Amino acid sequence: MASVPVSAAFASDNAAPAHPAALDALARANDGPAPSYGDDAVTAQAADALREAFDSPGADVLYAFTGTAANIIALASAVQPWHEILCSDVAHVLLDEAGGPVRLSGAQLTRLPSVDGLIAIDELDRRVARRGPVHHSQPRIVTITQSTENGRVWQAPDIKGFVDHAHDLGLLVHVDGSRVANAIAAQQVSPIDAVGDADIITVGGTKNGMLFGDAILVRRPEHFDGIAFVQKQIGHLASKHRYVAAQFLAFLTDDLWLQTAAHANAMARRLAAGLEERGFALASPVEANEVFVRLDPDAHDRLSRSYTVHQPDLDEPVWRLVCSWATTSEDVDGALAALR
Amino acid sequence: MASVPVSAAFASDNAAPAHPAALDALARANDGPAPSYGDDAVTAQAADALREAFDSPGADVLYAFTGTAANIIALASAVQPWHEILCSDVAHVLLDEAGGPVRLSGAQLTRLPSVDGLIAIDELDRRVARRGPVHHSQPRIVTITQSTENGRVWQAPDIKGFVDHAHDLGLLVHVDGSRVANAIAAQQVSPIDAVGDADIITVGGTKNGMLFGDAILVRRPEHFDGIAFVQKQIGHLASKHRYVAAQFLAFLTDDLWLQTAAHANAMARRLAAGLEERGFALASPVEANEVFVRLDPDAHDRLSRSYTVHQPDLDEPVWRLVCSWATTSEDVDGALAALR
Amino acid sequence: MASVPVSAAFASDNAAPAHPAALDALARANDGPAPSYGDDAVTAQAADALREAFDSPGADVLYAFTGTAANIIALASAVQPWHEILCSDVAHVLLDEAGGPVRLSGAQLTRLPSVDGLIAIDELDRRVARRGPVHHSQPRIVTITQSTENGRVWQAPDIKGFVDHAHDLGLLVHVDGSRVANAIAAQQVSPIDAVGDADIITVGGTKNGMLFGDAILVRRPEHFDGIAFVQKQIGHLASKHRYVAAQFLAFLTDDLWLQTAAHANAMARRLAAGLEERGFALASPVEANEVFVRLDPDAHDRLSRSYTVHQPDLDEPVWRLVCSWATTSEDVDGALAALR
Amino acid sequence: MASVPVSAAFASDNAAPAHPAALDALARANDGPAPSYGDDAVTAQAADALREAFDSPGADVLYAFTGTAANIIALASAVQPWHEILCSDVAHVLLDEAGGPVRLSGAQLTRLPSVDGLIAIDELDRRVARRGPVHHSQPRIVTITQSTENGRVWQAPDIKGFVDHAHDLGLLVHVDGSRVANAIAAQQVSPIDAVGDADIITVGGTKNGMLFGDAILVRRPEHFDGIAFVQKQIGHLASKHRYVAAQFLAFLTDDLWLQTAAHANAMARRLAAGLEERGFALASPVEANEVFVRLDPDAHDRLSRSYTVHQPDLDEPVWRLVCSWATTSEDVDGALAALR
Repeated sequence: MASVPVSAAFASDNAAPAHPAALDALARANDGPAPSYGDDAVTAQAADALREAFDSPGADVLYAFTGTAANIIALASAVQPWHEILCSDVAHVLLDEAGGPVRLSGAQLTRLPSVDGLIAIDELDRRVARRGPVHHSQPRIVTITQSTENGRVWQAPDIKGFVDHAHDLGLLVHVDGSRVANAIAAQQVSPIDAVGDADIITVGGTKNGMLFGDAILVRRPEHFDGIAFVQKQIGHLASKHRYVAAQFLAFLTDDLWLQTAAHANAMARRLAAGLEERGFALASPVEANEVFVRLDPDAHDRLSRSYTVHQPDLDEPVWRLVCSWATTSEDVDGALAALR
Repeated sequence: MASVPVSAAFASDNAAPAHPAALDALARANDGPAPSYGDDAVTAQAADALREAFDSPGADVLYAFTGTAANIIALASAVQPWHEILCSDVAHVLLDEAGGPVRLSGAQLTRLPSVDGLIAIDELDRRVARRGPVHHSQPRIVTITQSTENGRVWQAPDIKGFVDHAHDLGLLVHVDGSRVANAIAAQQVSPIDAVGDADIITVGGTKNGMLFGDAILVRRPEHFDGIAFVQKQIGHLASKHRYVAAQFLAFLTDDLWLQTAAHANAMARRLAAGLEERGFALASPVEANEVFVRLDPDAHDRLSRSYTVHQPDLDEPVWRLVCSWATTSEDVDGALAALR
Repeated sequence: MASVPVSAAFASDNAAPAHPAALDALARANDGPAPSYGDDAVTAQAADALREAFDSPGADVLYAFTGTAANIIALASAVQPWHEILCSDVAHVLLDEAGGPVRLSGAQLTRLPSVDGLIAIDELDRRVARRGPVHHSQPRIVTITQSTENGRVWQAPDIKGFVDHAHDLGLLVHVDGSRVANAIAAQQVSPIDAVGDADIITVGGTKNGMLFGDAILVRRPEHFDGIAFVQKQIGHLASKHRYVAAQFLAFLTDDLWLQTAAHANAMARRLAAGLEERGFALASPVEANEVFVRLDPDAHDRLSRSYTVHQPDLDEPVWRLVCSWATTSEDVDGALAALR
Repeated sequence: MASVPVSAAFASDNAAPAHPAALDALARANDGPAPSYGDDAVTAQAADALREAFDSPGADVLYAFTGTAANIIALASAVQPWHEILCSDVAHVLLDEAGGPVRLSGAQLTRLPSVDGLIAIDELDRRVARRGPVHHSQPRIVTITQSTENGRVWQAPDIKGFVDHAHDLGLLVHVDGSRVANAIAAQQVSPIDAVGDADIITVGGTKNGMLFGDAILVRRPEHFDGIAFVQKQIGHLASKHRYVAAQFLAFLTDDLWLQTAAHANAMARRLAAGLEERGFALASPVEANEVFVRLDPDAHDRLSRSYTVHQPDLDEPVWRLVCSWATTSEDVDGALAALR
């Protein structure tokens, strides 16, 4: 009997294929020569669309090919090597970018305790107390993730309070928004309400359904003076720039980016409900498109025969299943069936 | 009278659109979920194809989204911060990457005199003479560009001699091959003969006709130990990896990459011949797909009303016109007509 | 009434003057021209003395002008930017070097929980479990401090066990020994027993009674290949090298370094005993030359009118008093009197 | 017959012993506990003395233990990694600091042609022409050396013109003054006239007769915002700070620093005159304390049996002899005799 290949359907939202609208956008943009490095018409339109989506008329817009790069460009252009970057203890920038943010910035990256990536406000107060003396790294920016690495959503009033308090303490705020569309769709708020008054936001395209590409929305350009140089220095200024911009333009049109995210969220809820019905415990509330479920070895064994799943913390028997724009009800039901 | 828009047809080979085969490859690869970060089947096939094209069965294959990044990843993984990187005085890594290679590596980048990017062998001897004392940066790698930034081609026996001599001196060799296909096609030699026994080669995809993507062929992996980490740290490990690999696979199939390059070269020769017929002096021999022509202010004025052209050295009245897979005879004749 | 100046007698062991033997050594070394950068006779003798003191005949010896620099040189030469450096949550390299170790190495610095800087062995196991995937920084070296920043001493069997276990896990071990003489004197063991089989040790001179200077004993040179370059690159290769070497030679002669340390330890014990007699609670056991005492606001106010004291953690009413080779019984009794 | 040891008398001014006044200053400063890290009284007095010497009341004063470090701290705090640092083709920062300035700053270091380290003004114009586009490193600071590495002196009107022109072009100016006292004494001008309106000056102590220590005079602190952090991050904030400051205070008192320099210069002139009398050709005019002489192999052989001399450029049969505060007429005559 032939073995069935293991499916990547729940491995990550970046294991999904690209949405047809992304390929269509590439084809439309592929029309004769065009100025390179962002001086083309599509790039200008996409920037306007992103500024409008986030009610940020004064913002600058840049792109990176990956979310890791978008985070690094944002953080490295915010700090000097004697600054300190604050992040949660489950942050992608801390655990899953191979130390890139530290290498590029030269700055210390300090983990704050969190609940699933949600950081309590008073953690910030504790850190800024050490400011001043030349012996210590100086806290300069805090980065939070929306929705978080553990599939949680910062609620609009909470993120507003957090960002405003950080500003009161003289800290800049970066939002790692590789899944920000999922957080917006989950709350049904406007994009800007989902990120508060953050100074710089990375807006995920890859996990949202594009082939590649994450945008960087620089809401307070005066604090990110050399950001275009940082982008260039690590090779993320695309020469054929229209292809990344065209995808963003297509996804921002008619809120496609929020529709793909809403679908992914819905699939995650369906999956979570099915798991709970079958008696499996969720390790974190399912608020966006990721499901973290506690599995005994037998259950994990059955599931992993059909689906690749990821164990974020090797000390915990918790497994992650991610839904995407491309996840179908049949996929969800298949995973639940595999667990039976 | 309506003004005609200025054309980017000769601005650069990265102003060209993508070849239809690139878009087709993306569409074919867009088939259901696939493991991310290079664990997919297309990636494996493309790596085999590239190894085979360069007769390098033991090589590792990685990608970067841009040529700048490919160069940086190659160089930064070759050196320690107390090493010296040698390059020509017109090298892209020196002049057009915003200092990225220096920032990432921390190493000094030393320009060697050259003729259009072609470096004489004895320049290497002079540099290694200072090796040893802890006061000096230690020469470790030399990077050359094939075809060069000035549109010249290292002939197969010359590049063999250069690389072998560098090895004799204990230097590694990197070939910046963002236009290596043009150099191969121009000489009608095998790919490996066009790069000699170089240790690491970046193979341009973007300028060759893809939407994005340059490959890194690590022919001596033992000297580039952490290269996969460097790639990840600056955000060039694609999550949806199949899309970059699929384009390379398509272009390596049936030598499409050499055909697109040969066409670009032919258009450059046609353009150069036309310019000389009309009495314009070429600033460098036209050996690949770039034409450097000396223009008086009037001629430049007429040309630039219709075509964007680039002036590489602000002290010299020399202008660059680049041909690509997409350049047509009509484009060439149009540029010549504009100069009348 | 004239105000009495506040004394720095307990502010730090680096607030102490230099021991007369240090000045004598400088004067003796000041004899005519001598080869610079370490090619002089005194440097050779001092290196031999240090190798002998630590039973490490194959070790290399270098110097830095400060303990911060010695740590940075040791760590930065041990790692690549994709490595991870492990340290305790009170480590000087983490909290008091302005992020220098991170800036120079480009590597992530990860804090492990500790008791006063003493780290439990199983913390190491947890960290190395994430090794392998290119997404994560790779643990490479652990740095511990002997005696610790909180005045604790790693007992010889404990540090042996810790270092050996780290080696079993494929980790290198650095000992920040800015106060290693205090740890040796406190235990009355041989120097090598106080540091275990560590791969690289910084040996404090400044806090031990010199004018300046900390040594770096590279016990396994094969793992610190470019260390002489790192030292030079941050300006710690002394040109008039004999002056740093001469002080070390003088202090290693007849165990002066252990005598100054033993005296400092004794003064700390006397101070601690006096504090406890007067009802003040020690925040940590006093095992070397530092005393951490819990003070109510009134007591602190009285003490700080006469003596500068440092509060390591702004959230805790704990104050640090440090004894040195120059601390006298009168100083100790004065501080106790001030607290009455 | 016993062999006579080879003398380091002309090897370098950093092969000289320390001036007795330096040791006296150390002894006087060695008086009881004192606040560390520069909060002591001697440090304040020395800063005032340096500010007064250079007519720069608004300047900040810091120290580094070595000239290499002083240069690195000055340059690294002036630039971002996308800036370009300009220097002469014989600059110490380019050739003799192991790439430290590049490693610390991350910025490209570009050599300008010079005559013995003296750079023509129009070289600056050429460099700034490329400013603007994100593809290029942005020129930000030019560093010159006074007196130069080849023993030449920037005359007061020339350095004024150079610095003013650099400012007109939007460039900052750093003066590497490891031998600035020699340049001041040679011209018999005020210190500030010898450095023009430079923004930051490193003032050499080591080569001037101290045991160690170079000062950094930050004349325009607004352009060197984080300089105190950079100093700390590479371990050049001395804990027992009084010892470096005390030496500077002593040397600035009654112009001792200019007397030691004037003596060194006079000895160099005597040596140069003697060499020319004996028919040896000088490779550069002798304007400060360094002599560069062309020697045939026989003459070099005779000289090097008695004196260590340095060959700066391995391609040229030119040898360097450096005089210091400690060089005597007998030393000079001895060298001349050795050449007979």
